[in-house]
Amino acid sequence: MSPARTPVIIDCDPGIDDAIALFLAFASPELEIAGICAVAGNVGINRAADNAARLAQLIGVPETVPVVRGHAGPVARVRRLPDEPVHGAGGLGGVDLPEATRPPHPGHAVDWMAEQLERRPGEFTLIALGPLTNVAALLHTRPDLRAAVREIVLMGGAAFAPGNVTPAAEFNFYADPEAARYVAETGVPLRIVPLDATRKALTPLEDAQTLERDGAPVTSAAGRMLRHLVERHSARSGVAACAVHDALAVAAAVQPDLLEWTEASVTVECTGEFTRGALVADVHQRTGQARNALVATGVDAAAFRELLLSRLRRYSRQDP
Amino acid sequence: MSPARTPVIIDCDPGIDDAIALFLAFASPELEIAGICAVAGNVGINRAADNAARLAQLIGVPETVPVVRGHAGPVARVRRLPDEPVHGAGGLGGVDLPEATRPPHPGHAVDWMAEQLERRPGEFTLIALGPLTNVAALLHTRPDLRAAVREIVLMGGAAFAPGNVTPAAEFNFYADPEAARYVAETGVPLRIVPLDATRKALTPLEDAQTLERDGAPVTSAAGRMLRHLVERHSARSGVAACAVHDALAVAAAVQPDLLEWTEASVTVECTGEFTRGALVADVHQRTGQARNALVATGVDAAAFRELLLSRLRRYSRQDP
Amino acid sequence: MSPARTPVIIDCDPGIDDAIALFLAFASPELEIAGICAVAGNVGINRAADNAARLAQLIGVPETVPVVRGHAGPVARVRRLPDEPVHGAGGLGGVDLPEATRPPHPGHAVDWMAEQLERRPGEFTLIALGPLTNVAALLHTRPDLRAAVREIVLMGGAAFAPGNVTPAAEFNFYADPEAARYVAETGVPLRIVPLDATRKALTPLEDAQTLERDGAPVTSAAGRMLRHLVERHSARSGVAACAVHDALAVAAAVQPDLLEWTEASVTVECTGEFTRGALVADVHQRTGQARNALVATGVDAAAFRELLLSRLRRYSRQDP
Amino acid sequence: MSPARTPVIIDCDPGIDDAIALFLAFASPELEIAGICAVAGNVGINRAADNAARLAQLIGVPETVPVVRGHAGPVARVRRLPDEPVHGAGGLGGVDLPEATRPPHPGHAVDWMAEQLERRPGEFTLIALGPLTNVAALLHTRPDLRAAVREIVLMGGAAFAPGNVTPAAEFNFYADPEAARYVAETGVPLRIVPLDATRKALTPLEDAQTLERDGAPVTSAAGRMLRHLVERHSARSGVAACAVHDALAVAAAVQPDLLEWTEASVTVECTGEFTRGALVADVHQRTGQARNALVATGVDAAAFRELLLSRLRRYSRQDP
Ligand SMILES: [Ca+2]
Ligand SMILES: [Ca+2]
Ligand SMILES: [Ca+2]
Ligand SMILES: [Ca+2]
Repeated sequence: MSPARTPVIIDCDPGIDDAIALFLAFASPELEIAGICAVAGNVGINRAADNAARLAQLIGVPETVPVVRGHAGPVARVRRLPDEPVHGAGGLGGVDLPEATRPPHPGHAVDWMAEQLERRPGEFTLIALGPLTNVAALLHTRPDLRAAVREIVLMGGAAFAPGNVTPAAEFNFYADPEAARYVAETGVPLRIVPLDATRKALTPLEDAQTLERDGAPVTSAAGRMLRHLVERHSARSGVAACAVHDALAVAAAVQPDLLEWTEASVTVECTGEFTRGALVADVHQRTGQARNALVATGVDAAAFRELLLSRLRRYSRQDP
Repeated sequence: MSPARTPVIIDCDPGIDDAIALFLAFASPELEIAGICAVAGNVGINRAADNAARLAQLIGVPETVPVVRGHAGPVARVRRLPDEPVHGAGGLGGVDLPEATRPPHPGHAVDWMAEQLERRPGEFTLIALGPLTNVAALLHTRPDLRAAVREIVLMGGAAFAPGNVTPAAEFNFYADPEAARYVAETGVPLRIVPLDATRKALTPLEDAQTLERDGAPVTSAAGRMLRHLVERHSARSGVAACAVHDALAVAAAVQPDLLEWTEASVTVECTGEFTRGALVADVHQRTGQARNALVATGVDAAAFRELLLSRLRRYSRQDP
Repeated sequence: MSPARTPVIIDCDPGIDDAIALFLAFASPELEIAGICAVAGNVGINRAADNAARLAQLIGVPETVPVVRGHAGPVARVRRLPDEPVHGAGGLGGVDLPEATRPPHPGHAVDWMAEQLERRPGEFTLIALGPLTNVAALLHTRPDLRAAVREIVLMGGAAFAPGNVTPAAEFNFYADPEAARYVAETGVPLRIVPLDATRKALTPLEDAQTLERDGAPVTSAAGRMLRHLVERHSARSGVAACAVHDALAVAAAVQPDLLEWTEASVTVECTGEFTRGALVADVHQRTGQARNALVATGVDAAAFRELLLSRLRRYSRQDP
Repeated sequence: MSPARTPVIIDCDPGIDDAIALFLAFASPELEIAGICAVAGNVGINRAADNAARLAQLIGVPETVPVVRGHAGPVARVRRLPDEPVHGAGGLGGVDLPEATRPPHPGHAVDWMAEQLERRPGEFTLIALGPLTNVAALLHTRPDLRAAVREIVLMGGAAFAPGNVTPAAEFNFYADPEAARYVAETGVPLRIVPLDATRKALTPLEDAQTLERDGAPVTSAAGRMLRHLVERHSARSGVAACAVHDALAVAAAVQPDLLEWTEASVTVECTGEFTRGALVADVHQRTGQARNALVATGVDAAAFRELLLSRLRRYSRQDP
């Protein structure tokens, strides 16, 4: 008898690493994915929803697992950050995917998530791979459903590592600091996968090439996207490898003990001149605040590499 | 032929002055009131929704004009301000109103407002008498409907006058500064009725007494509530009169030229150590930002007093 | 027997209104002026010190009353605001004054002020007409001398009036908010003359012309400077009159009951996104902080006009 | 011929680790120490100046190397942080040192430092071991002397490590964030030794015991102080070892290549709700700001341990 699968909802803003994260998630029998929500972040909401739908189609996600459009910008600023250039044209590293044929889901991501939580209270893990706008809006609109969320596993923040937008802030948190803070304040169980962890779990060029050569639709798309990321990263740092941030957050839901978790009281700075969007993690209990999160500060990089590669290659076996 | 009535939605957090504002609104033929939304503010959302329903029943509002429950706290903080003590037990100055018999409206205020705007784009004025949480959430969730709002008339802020929560901030803005800033940033046409205006339009004890003596249900409730406010204010200031903030905002929708309006570029401070929630009004075009609001800086106090009293006395004539 | 004269030290950043303020001060027998300190503000420190020396020479201030150079920029930022364009070329409205022949005072304004306070503890009123950098540095460097200051009378801030640099902040406070906050926090007795008062005490073009026609060196220089201010102001506002901010602060030291004073607990916002440099005046005791200042919120404008004009004309009588 | 010694001025707030740092500095022939300045920080200014004098006497520092009293609190707040409890009674871990017999130096630390820089421009390295109040005040009061400082080596901040006062801030920076920011903004060459480095260079209980057993006055005082620190640290963390923060900064001046230096553009957050006092280090050039500091991110811990122990034991050899 197979072990119980974890019911999850994936909220994302694809984005290359979101795409890899979706590939990983749908190749992981540990997860039962109820649906994919889109949020503005790496790209605008139209692009994010469209990319999510195209990715779902490429993967072969059945229409019973909907792709639902969410918020177009952060909760507390009318203007959102411009698209992240690292994700290239279209947000998927220049990889063109066939247009999605499934009709757009009519509802709003926040409402759809609320329905799922109502139907199966206490069961769902939310995997949040973009700005936390949808998740915060859900917890704000439906405070009664906070207790119905089993856990939130999110990619975001830089606890004791440099940010990737500003010296202090990572993209997802910087794009909507008030949402990130809100989520942290609710007290919903939280696993945070920050840059501290993702930068320690690099995917080498070699793996991108292996996947690209495979030739099956998902593996080769994954390969090309990863190669795009590696090349961007390599141009900056000289290292022919890249972090695949969001995929590590999915891995954290699939196999939590791949990562090293530190209990902390966390919040997000919303008002700093230089630190807006910074994840503030109290790991030494200096504030006296209750611990409200597990923060990934380490990772078994080899095991993650192995997990990612082996799971992505399942798309190859399915497509002989 | 009677002139066209202005279609309005009233978003409120009753609160005594919200109650008087509702009395004034429903006695004003200039307005066509589509519904009443409740938001947490002077009182929590349960009390706000219940008070709104009781007030609607007292006024005799038909069930086709719904009372719809909205957000329970601000958009960017999990904790809301405590109830405003000035409004007394129950939030209506200790005045007990009969329980509402209408069934609660099933939807959320934000969704309901969105439906109204979709059905009659460009027609509605939103009259916002509490924290701007519902309004900001509407404009955030449905950016496509921003253009469908004819105007927002709101009570909030203190431009060039002392605040009433902190030295710099008025209650509605302080209770949800991010929402107030968001609304201002959207560029939806805005009329702001700040403390600068409301403190110049005092209702004297005499009017409260006149109303209370009248004996009809609405007038005497209004009289008792106003007396409560006057007494609270009088204990502080020695002046036997009180501002009825929200009622002035309704008056601004009923008869805009009762007030003196100054064009300004406005925003709301969200990050100050002492100024969080402050309305920042650029009336001298120092910032180079486009003007996005009319700010009421003066009022014909006598005309407002006359308007309020005469309209409230209509409840007397209807009840012989 | 003549009444005792108030020993004062004037700290300034001339600046046109500083110049008029100095003219007023030295024509006022109520004051015993021990020296003039210069601080960067309307102009840089070199210009401020040089202008102060030239003004002293024009007035005929004896060398026993020194002009002492102080700080070149604010206490907490390496960069200072650019020179105020309203003061025109050279900072004195384009009026060229003869070079000062007195040798520069060798010390630093902060040290010199400390010496005066040590020699005559409890006697001096500091009249601060520029950013509060020198004054804050004095109170910081020599906390033991805080009690030796009789009172600080300062021009700065906008309590319930629009700022003149940003919508929320006046120049002197905006130029060094940390200094202004520091001074307020020390608890030294404080009289603040903010824009609320100075904008109500306008000097009309007529007075500028009267002085200019007089022909005596000081009066005609004063007339030309005031005309410059009036013209600048008139171009903006259409009103042929101008506030002479710093002169009103000197008048407040000469004749305090020219102004209406409100007791308040004051501080200065240093961290706002839109409100940095704002004077925060708690006049209704909302904060529970002890009152630490008298804030001028009103002025007898006619009496000030009369005082200023009549005192400036004394330079005419001295020069027949 | 011996190599040139580096002329240094040590600014400190003793404090145990300051004491050890002074012991190390005076035992290091690489340094030519012109004087010791005291600043409020771990303890108040009276205690800091007195502890510095007692330490100088214990060490046998000649009176030609003065101990000069500086600022009593931060540049931008009237209230300073309370004394650091980790330093124990008296600030030196409960170790009583004989009263200093040298007369107090009459001047102020800022003036004295300015004199040194004037006399030997371009020669001095400032070693700053406390809040940066004195150093910032020097660079503010005498901008002409910024170019006369050869380098500032300072202990302070937490770049990519948890703070020790708040989750984001280290004590010296938190105690005077505006001063720290000011120093960084001046562009004076800067070496920053943050907690990132000091926490990697622990002194074990064993070394404390070795020194304590030695019996010579300095070594045994050092041993007892270090044991106090180890015990405090051990109670918290279970590790019988302690960081000796300030001593590592002295080591950085003595032997810079003990540490690993990363070029960065640094500033200090002064306005955050949770991040006030945070060192913000841009090591990936995200801000486009010029690099203005070398930040120690690594250390050869064994070599530091060896350096510290061997140098402290020189006090033993001097005292047979
Ligand atoms: Ca993402
Ligand atoms: Ca209200
Ligand atoms: Ca001035
Ligand atoms: Ca220290």
